[in-house]
Amino acid sequence: MVKFEVLHTEVSARAGWLETDHGVIETPIFMPVGTQGSVKAVEQREMSELGAQIILGNAYHLYLRPGVDVLKGMGGLHRFMNWEKPILTDSGGYQVFSLTELRKITNDGVTFRSHVDGSSHYFTPEKVMEIEHAIGSDIMMVLDECTPYPCEHLYAKKSNEMTVRWAKQCQTVHVASVPLYGHRQALFAIVQGSVFRDIRKESATALVDLDFEGYAIGGLAVGEPAAEMYDIAQFCTDLLPAEKPRYLMGVGTPENILECIERGIDMFDCVMPTRNGRNSMVFTRDGRVNLRNAKHRTDSRPVDGECSCYGCRNFSRAYLRHLFQVKEILALQLASMHNLTYYLWLVKESRRQIIAGTFSTWKREMIGRMNAGSDRTTG
Amino acid sequence: MVKFEVLHTEVSARAGWLETDHGVIETPIFMPVGTQGSVKAVEQREMSELGAQIILGNAYHLYLRPGVDVLKGMGGLHRFMNWEKPILTDSGGYQVFSLTELRKITNDGVTFRSHVDGSSHYFTPEKVMEIEHAIGSDIMMVLDECTPYPCEHLYAKKSNEMTVRWAKQCQTVHVASVPLYGHRQALFAIVQGSVFRDIRKESATALVDLDFEGYAIGGLAVGEPAAEMYDIAQFCTDLLPAEKPRYLMGVGTPENILECIERGIDMFDCVMPTRNGRNSMVFTRDGRVNLRNAKHRTDSRPVDGECSCYGCRNFSRAYLRHLFQVKEILALQLASMHNLTYYLWLVKESRRQIIAGTFSTWKREMIGRMNAGSDRTTG
Repeated sequence: MVKFEVLHTEVSARAGWLETDHGVIETPIFMPVGTQGSVKAVEQREMSELGAQIILGNAYHLYLRPGVDVLKGMGGLHRFMNWEKPILTDSGGYQVFSLTELRKITNDGVTFRSHVDGSSHYFTPEKVMEIEHAIGSDIMMVLDECTPYPCEHLYAKKSNEMTVRWAKQCQTVHVASVPLYGHRQALFAIVQGSVFRDIRKESATALVDLDFEGYAIGGLAVGEPAAEMYDIAQFCTDLLPAEKPRYLMGVGTPENILECIERGIDMFDCVMPTRNGRNSMVFTRDGRVNLRNAKHRTDSRPVDGECSCYGCRNFSRAYLRHLFQVKEILALQLASMHNLTYYLWLVKESRRQIIAGTFSTWKREMIGRMNAGSDRTTG
Repeated sequence: MVKFEVLHTEVSARAGWLETDHGVIETPIFMPVGTQGSVKAVEQREMSELGAQIILGNAYHLYLRPGVDVLKGMGGLHRFMNWEKPILTDSGGYQVFSLTELRKITNDGVTFRSHVDGSSHYFTPEKVMEIEHAIGSDIMMVLDECTPYPCEHLYAKKSNEMTVRWAKQCQTVHVASVPLYGHRQALFAIVQGSVFRDIRKESATALVDLDFEGYAIGGLAVGEPAAEMYDIAQFCTDLLPAEKPRYLMGVGTPENILECIERGIDMFDCVMPTRNGRNSMVFTRDGRVNLRNAKHRTDSRPVDGECSCYGCRNFSRAYLRHLFQVKEILALQLASMHNLTYYLWLVKESRRQIIAGTFSTWKREMIGRMNAGSDRTTG
């Protein structure tokens, strides 16, 4: 169970708070991705230090390893990974459909082979609820199919009908369940429908009728143009109830996030800050920087002079460049922490600007500054 | 320049302190290895947290990357890596002789090809001093040849004569030099001679005559039996002046370290805690543990219940096992920090026991406890 309240709005943009039994999340929020029970290369105490209020886990990955029996035996994911703030789990639908081989979808569920060892598994809405209950996440996502882009209208329509049916089945199982670890869990539905407005409307209408505690928008950030993503996000938020939190799954770049906050999104997740960080790309207030670039060889400036992260307070671009050149693990740690600090600053500052009524102006300035400064080499 | 004082002895074992311009080191000490300007997978603030008093860098690696010009431009290694405690640099002799191809030794120096890009380089005693001055380490090591094991007597004798000659040349260059960054640097010589007592004696006698600020024992921990290592260490410490620090290079296991503290060694370095940690092997007061072992699947105990490290205070063996299974970088971070914490505890406790006059008894108990508890699977 979650409580949600919108405190301020600026046109469609919202500043609010979302309360779980593991604490309050200030929205809009970015949720770092800790797929397998760890945000890659960042310690839990560092996640707190850099301002993370909620992190993601993934039911598909955690089901495969460590497995439901270990999670139950260890008292759920919060205790297992010693993270006492909120956790949201994706159902694993996206991973089943993108990572696994030989998947076979029926009306009842999906059979697939593990990407780890090729073993065969069967996910149904009931099974996924069992996994997410064993994980004990504060916010669970329903089992869905995330359609690829591009996607035929007919395929998207049939797929969405299944996703809506599965959402209802997840809800039925969840409502009848008792939480395992003493704290309450909420269930969010996922609006699908690719880039087709009629299907998005069918999806949103049906899911809103079922009265979920929150609504995600799935099936975006899968290759469609940014303008299409923004339009569909706005189209969906207009259909969703104002009093429920809205989560745009898998988005995105700093610019994507600002544009979608403006369109009424409250929650975001993306692997970009950690994945790009591990690949030597860091985000700054003046755009993207590739730390492998030779121009940083003797650059004594921090990655971002306005950033408060451990790396920016203590190390030069030259040192980070050296660490990437010689393949030191510390490079991955510092770049990941920096990028997460940047993303969390971005949403926190957005919230402050919404409350001040200056978000729209600030957003335009920020995007201009980012685009003016980015390394050409990092695209 | 360093100051050294022995405060307490128990038979051959010594407790002392070693003062550098970057602070005091309590001996016996273990020095974590930060070859390329980073102790692998551990942040500088974490090095302080776990009690590191001095770390190692390597002249060969740092010469190749980031290079002498970058080190000079950035104000030396302390500033470059933001580590304000003491640093010792190995000369790179060991790496030139073990890592590189096509090396060619002459009386004047050694030509070799970089292990990074195959480029050709030439190290002389003068060149190595130039590199170590650019690094700005508090303690520099002379250029030496570390003989392999086994090694012909004649080869070891000729090699040692060269090492002694190079040591004198290093000293001559160093004495005439002015430190680059405002703090003083000391130069330690390296006793070689393989397992041959006559050559070890020649080496020690010649180097002691030259009056270095400290003496290392090289050419051990290269494959000889442990008993031979201990005997040669004792043989050398008996030849070295009591008032100078003694450093046993590249040693070793916790048992090796305790045995060699007993034989009068003050300083140790080894990649074992970090390298083995990254390979899922952790050291505990009850011996070695392989964290990949299935028996830890639901083990809620910390790695070592008596350890104060971040991992042992916060995470279970089950969680660490999971992190290793799914190849999370956090596994490498936690295991490295734990093992370094263990090694630093080991030398700190040794010092306390020497001061109390109970080292020998405690050492026997500790070794018994380690050997009784080790996982069979980790050998």
